[in-house]
Amino acid sequence: MKFKKRTHTCGELRESNIGENVVLNGWVAIRRDLGGVIFIELRDRYGMTQIVFEPSHNQALHEQAKKLRNEFVISVEGKVRKRPEGTENPNVPTGNIDIVADNLIILNSAETTPFPIEDNIDVHEDLRLKYRYLDLRRAEMQKSLLLRHKMYLLTRKYFDQNNFVEVETPILMKSTPEGARDFLVPSRLHKGKFYALPQSPQTYKQILMVAGLDRYFQIVKCFRDEDLRADRQYEFTQIDVEMSFVDVEDIFEIVEGLMKVFFKEILNKELQTPLKRLSYDEAMEKYGSDKPDLRFDLEMLTLNDVLQKTEFRVFKEAIENKGIITGLLAKGCGDYTRNQLDVLTDFVKKLGAGGLIWMRVKGNELEAPIAKFLTEEEKTNIIKKLNAEDGDLIFILSGNKYKTLSYMGSLRLEMAKRMNLINENAEPQLLWVTDFPLFEWDDETKRYYAMHHPFTSPKVEDIPLMDTDPSKVRARAYDLVMNGNEIAGGSIRIHNADLQAKMFKTLGIDEKEANEKFGFLMGAFKYGAPPHGGIAFGFDRLAMLFAGRNSIRDVIAFPKTSSGMSLMDDSPSHVDENQLKELHIKVR
Amino acid sequence: MKFKKRTHTCGELRESNIGENVVLNGWVAIRRDLGGVIFIELRDRYGMTQIVFEPSHNQALHEQAKKLRNEFVISVEGKVRKRPEGTENPNVPTGNIDIVADNLIILNSAETTPFPIEDNIDVHEDLRLKYRYLDLRRAEMQKSLLLRHKMYLLTRKYFDQNNFVEVETPILMKSTPEGARDFLVPSRLHKGKFYALPQSPQTYKQILMVAGLDRYFQIVKCFRDEDLRADRQYEFTQIDVEMSFVDVEDIFEIVEGLMKVFFKEILNKELQTPLKRLSYDEAMEKYGSDKPDLRFDLEMLTLNDVLQKTEFRVFKEAIENKGIITGLLAKGCGDYTRNQLDVLTDFVKKLGAGGLIWMRVKGNELEAPIAKFLTEEEKTNIIKKLNAEDGDLIFILSGNKYKTLSYMGSLRLEMAKRMNLINENAEPQLLWVTDFPLFEWDDETKRYYAMHHPFTSPKVEDIPLMDTDPSKVRARAYDLVMNGNEIAGGSIRIHNADLQAKMFKTLGIDEKEANEKFGFLMGAFKYGAPPHGGIAFGFDRLAMLFAGRNSIRDVIAFPKTSSGMSLMDDSPSHVDENQLKELHIKVR
Repeated sequence: MKFKKRTHTCGELRESNIGENVVLNGWVAIRRDLGGVIFIELRDRYGMTQIVFEPSHNQALHEQAKKLRNEFVISVEGKVRKRPEGTENPNVPTGNIDIVADNLIILNSAETTPFPIEDNIDVHEDLRLKYRYLDLRRAEMQKSLLLRHKMYLLTRKYFDQNNFVEVETPILMKSTPEGARDFLVPSRLHKGKFYALPQSPQTYKQILMVAGLDRYFQIVKCFRDEDLRADRQYEFTQIDVEMSFVDVEDIFEIVEGLMKVFFKEILNKELQTPLKRLSYDEAMEKYGSDKPDLRFDLEMLTLNDVLQKTEFRVFKEAIENKGIITGLLAKGCGDYTRNQLDVLTDFVKKLGAGGLIWMRVKGNELEAPIAKFLTEEEKTNIIKKLNAEDGDLIFILSGNKYKTLSYMGSLRLEMAKRMNLINENAEPQLLWVTDFPLFEWDDETKRYYAMHHPFTSPKVEDIPLMDTDPSKVRARAYDLVMNGNEIAGGSIRIHNADLQAKMFKTLGIDEKEANEKFGFLMGAFKYGAPPHGGIAFGFDRLAMLFAGRNSIRDVIAFPKTSSGMSLMDDSPSHVDENQLKELHIKVR
Repeated sequence: MKFKKRTHTCGELRESNIGENVVLNGWVAIRRDLGGVIFIELRDRYGMTQIVFEPSHNQALHEQAKKLRNEFVISVEGKVRKRPEGTENPNVPTGNIDIVADNLIILNSAETTPFPIEDNIDVHEDLRLKYRYLDLRRAEMQKSLLLRHKMYLLTRKYFDQNNFVEVETPILMKSTPEGARDFLVPSRLHKGKFYALPQSPQTYKQILMVAGLDRYFQIVKCFRDEDLRADRQYEFTQIDVEMSFVDVEDIFEIVEGLMKVFFKEILNKELQTPLKRLSYDEAMEKYGSDKPDLRFDLEMLTLNDVLQKTEFRVFKEAIENKGIITGLLAKGCGDYTRNQLDVLTDFVKKLGAGGLIWMRVKGNELEAPIAKFLTEEEKTNIIKKLNAEDGDLIFILSGNKYKTLSYMGSLRLEMAKRMNLINENAEPQLLWVTDFPLFEWDDETKRYYAMHHPFTSPKVEDIPLMDTDPSKVRARAYDLVMNGNEIAGGSIRIHNADLQAKMFKTLGIDEKEANEKFGFLMGAFKYGAPPHGGIAFGFDRLAMLFAGRNSIRDVIAFPKTSSGMSLMDDSPSHVDENQLKELHIKVR
């Protein structure tokens, strides 16, 4: 099918083009027949332009245009004219002109699409994924992909300007299942052996620092065989960053610089830096979360001090067991019904809390089932501490420190919703959360796990605690949080073979296992490893937030469903038995 | 270990900095003890700077500096001074200054490295790969990685400026083993099913055209489970490009624009465009290759016309069987000995040729074993056609057209070497090879295969031949060749479901199989697919050529060996039986 090359895109023509002969190629978005004249809105990635087929102008062509249906692909030649007065469309940039067609070539026809090619459609996501090539024709999806493209460019330009080198690290690498589950790839040449897809290029980027690359970044695919959610995919994209001869402040400076660029170039806003910082402990005590959403207040308050000498059993036990008593003030919610309070009690119970203590503030008094167990002084101090007033509602939880804080953190978010405190259009709020615990104890396997990963450096002053009380060791680790989402996380790394060995030991990884899995890294540390640290951004989530979408699937061209399927091409799929034979594997 | 942040890199200080107090961090590259003074060449990615430890300046520090060994990582504070006259080093940009040390912190020690950190080392590549973190400290390797980084940026900037969108396509996709062998990834949630790693994002990029993205590019990892060579790796990087509403000329224009940028920004040369073009047939007849190296002449000539009526059996058969008789003139090689000629005969026989006909030109006569079978007219015409003169040597091969031409093409390269025609420093030579055959017949499986891939469009005028003589159908396919290397290949695609079905049929892929594997693409063609085409560059090879290296492994940070092993981290490796159980597979 011969067709003429377009002279303009469908988003390009203006009044200054009036009188020109042009060729446009695109899709029929809308077809109208008004008073015997056929109007076509021709669409491409760049916009829409109205084409007019007038029988008085060209009878044969008008006949031909009658065949056009939505989503036909056509090539049109014609003359640009000013639209007749009163028919302009101020909503599109080409709205003052249209094209009187002189020639039409149908490049491809189209069946009726299973859903309309429009924004804000109410269609099951499965159908959108199956017909992704139609879903991606919609303007809002193209906008998301174009924003993503812009973010790649801004990122790469920024890091290049700051002397970072982009280095590609392998996708076929060694399986080191510390952390999430690996995806495995059987080797054909090495029977019974497997490659793994990277959960992150962590070891490679550290190796690049040992290699003296000084400043590395990469926008890179990573893989985790974990169950999927709205903000998780099997394969996801990271902005991966590592720097040598740095401390935490240097990483913050580089990252804040990038965020300033995003704010400026995408949101057209000046981001004020340095960003707010909260230690993990502060974040947990105030917001019950290590990724607090600071777009609204509603802070939690620790009540241990005002209840230090309480005789109320529940609180007393919490204090004796080095636990916490945390309170939340729900301004003006004193009129919550018993039923509403039961619902909220169920809410925290489902999370694992033993129950929920609530108190209504009436004048200067607390009205609550447990009121009788507290002294007048304690009640007064609670009111004072929480700054409570008549008509307010107070929630209190107590018990194991971090668990209790996280229950209250969830209740905080729930109350924020109920109290209409969340404004999706509020200024985006960024902060650093720092000083994470280095280790997490797991009750099930009875061992410590690295909260960040096993290459994270402890704070120098906490190293002795690795022998005595690992749970107290703070890491030189940090997360960047935006509107309640963790968008980046990183740490200063261990660069010393002895400290790395000590780390593995604390994690219960014996020398043999450590050597098998990470021997090359510890070996590398023996040949002059510089101090180094880095960070990795969840690029999909970042793109989602800047695009103002609610699912990362809306900023990924070809995402998988929550069961890891690609509905468009129906993968994963069965493969030929011969393929498996060559790979020396069989299905159990 | 506390250390001061560097004030400068090791490549930065100049005479204008004399008198400044500075802090440098880096690696001890060279350590000299001259007359009781210790000189350190401190190295980082940016360069080298000389540090001086004088006992008269600081006795204790001089003692400390005695401990330094090569590759120790240190932080040094001191004052920049002009080097004493006569001790300047004009070979490094920092060679007019050095730093008198006032403070030294050893950040990490280093064992003796298994090979020196120098350019042009004579070390087995396996050792370099095992200690890649040391190999990459060498300036020539860092230069290659930095060039690669620059090429990423130039590529992305260029395509962005030309309205292309970078879109990430999935790594976990559907297995469609038409072409090379797939790498497979077992699914945990879907027992007995597998993902495949992409051999290329071919179907996705076509889907993006159907989705109206108009112009797509991506720098993307691809995977082929094929045996490795110096210019092949399991995982390799492509610049992947696709455009809608285009013909061959549009693709050429975009690609030539990119090559102009590379020539300008990397080689500082003006590339003349449009580039030379040869059809596949021309390239084969003149150079015996579809990727001819045009840095030297030495063209082959087809002799069919001058031997049309020959009675010499070998040539006569070639002509009767629609084969070819091809000649090559080796200027001034008439003195080749019988032994030399035997070696060359063996050379072509090993390739598969039946033998090699040679003729010495003596005056106006041909001296050759077969001379007696040719008429005087034939001999005269051969001399005339090849423009041969006294003292020249002529080679002739005959038989099946493309096979014979490719044997002669190999002999051409061999003779070019022997005649010292190849000058590695000659101007790089680029050309397009066009009009490839659409199909290749395979004698073993008795079927046609797609020479490019099954989505390649035939030339419109050749479509009827698909039914009658598929071997004669020419494709709208093209390769970009540089110095005898294919650096990019592409085609205009089929965008019509019926033609695509016809293509599968000719390839002997039945409807069921075609639907299972590519049904989604043919389905997509039903909803308005635009005409489209594209190309993919072998990025590793491109980087290798522009870096002037001989192996793609020198422009890849962490390459695998020819048996697909990563010597640094020893992968592929055995994995835990539980991992396999979760994936529902076992080793045979």
